[in-house]
Amino acid sequence: MRKIAFQGAHGSYSEEAAISLGEVETVPCRTLSDVFEIVESGGGEGIVPVENSIEGSIVRTYDLLKDSTVQISREVILKISHCLITNPGTDLKSIRRVYSHPQALGQCEQYLRELNYEALPTYDTAGSLELVKREKGSAAIASERAAKMYDMEILEKGIQMSPENYTRFFVISAHDADPTGADKTSIVFSTKHLPGSLYHCLEIFAKAELNLMKIESRPILGQPWSYNFYLDFEGHKADAGSKKALKELKKRTIFLKVLGSYPKGVNR
Amino acid sequence: MRKIAFQGAHGSYSEEAAISLGEVETVPCRTLSDVFEIVESGGGEGIVPVENSIEGSIVRTYDLLKDSTVQISREVILKISHCLITNPGTDLKSIRRVYSHPQALGQCEQYLRELNYEALPTYDTAGSLELVKREKGSAAIASERAAKMYDMEILEKGIQMSPENYTRFFVISAHDADPTGADKTSIVFSTKHLPGSLYHCLEIFAKAELNLMKIESRPILGQPWSYNFYLDFEGHKADAGSKKALKELKKRTIFLKVLGSYPKGVNR
Repeated sequence: MRKIAFQGAHGSYSEEAAISLGEVETVPCRTLSDVFEIVESGGGEGIVPVENSIEGSIVRTYDLLKDSTVQISREVILKISHCLITNPGTDLKSIRRVYSHPQALGQCEQYLRELNYEALPTYDTAGSLELVKREKGSAAIASERAAKMYDMEILEKGIQMSPENYTRFFVISAHDADPTGADKTSIVFSTKHLPGSLYHCLEIFAKAELNLMKIESRPILGQPWSYNFYLDFEGHKADAGSKKALKELKKRTIFLKVLGSYPKGVNR
Repeated sequence: MRKIAFQGAHGSYSEEAAISLGEVETVPCRTLSDVFEIVESGGGEGIVPVENSIEGSIVRTYDLLKDSTVQISREVILKISHCLITNPGTDLKSIRRVYSHPQALGQCEQYLRELNYEALPTYDTAGSLELVKREKGSAAIASERAAKMYDMEILEKGIQMSPENYTRFFVISAHDADPTGADKTSIVFSTKHLPGSLYHCLEIFAKAELNLMKIESRPILGQPWSYNFYLDFEGHKADAGSKKALKELKKRTIFLKVLGSYPKGVNR
């Protein structure tokens, strides 16, 4: 069976995204680095969150993609509805502390502030339920699916700041995907230290009419206030237009890496 | 005396950045929102971290700047050297758990992984020392100054991934600053949903020869995969060139806000 590693405990959103791909064996990992290591060592594929529509980029994923040999082979978009979950029989009024992954706490920040809950960051949404089992007056933020898996009680549903809440995941594999006609390509590059250098890179995509979906900047280690830029654009790296653009981009950058071309995901 | 609110406990890096401004009264706050609220209600100035040269942007600060009425009046850059701190007399080998702010844990990720420490996120570097006082076999990551303030022992110094580690802070006030000749301006805007729209915005700065120092994208709430862009450029908003550029930018964007013009900080 197709083996997919993910960060977190069984019941996490990453696992839900993996299961949406069909019949898969999911492998829980403590950290995102661990997921990348499994894929690099040929132990299967991985699925990693890259961006949430409320809270923004999962920057560690970006950093790991740059340094790893893995390629992005697919995009999966998962609708996220967070639940406040606690031990069966617990009264909402007795809750003081709420555990979850920092991303989930961020997505529910308004709710937590209004109820004056103490938000405590953990490694994982589903994994937080184990902590709650051991501590009275605590709750966790995780999915409905996680609540069921751990036999816990849902006190409230849909507690994130906006109902329009989606997380984008990348499936990471040894190779990226063949063209399907509805693809995206992710790249990372750094520019020369000249005024207008980012502009001159984006110019290539504008002139080639390649639609940019997302731009992200990350610091370069050891070079304060220098950045790597991550771009997602519509198209496959094997398309004539993309090929030409990437060739031109190589001339205007000091570092360029294609992270993969893959079928576009859909919000669902 | 000049009153400056900061996030964290006494001894935090934000407080250190505040003190570098001269004789000030520092006011600790639990969250970044609290710092903004104090400034908005006329209770003094604030100082907030905006970016670290290893770990990247403090995205919550970006979000708060967009929604708040405060202005950026100064940039402060602080060299950050993290220490592993514990109770006096504790053996390095007995340490299992390490507490600190997620930003500091991220900056020291390699060190923590090599020593196989469990990294536990908290609200604050200095505040973590209080937790360590109550728990055997634990340590915290904070500054040398914090270790002294809390009478704790430093086990190791400079444990971050790179010695070139700086954090940029913004002083936030009711108004921004007058031109000094060595200024920066921070803005936030969103573009129309058209291919090349970010490129057409950056074009203005390239043509005006205004040097872009930093670009950051943040999701727009309720509009998945739409972004606000944050730009820092060299120059003061009152300069003729900047004025013209901002006027032109207004035409090409659907939302534009100047977050402030302020004297540039220096790495120190």
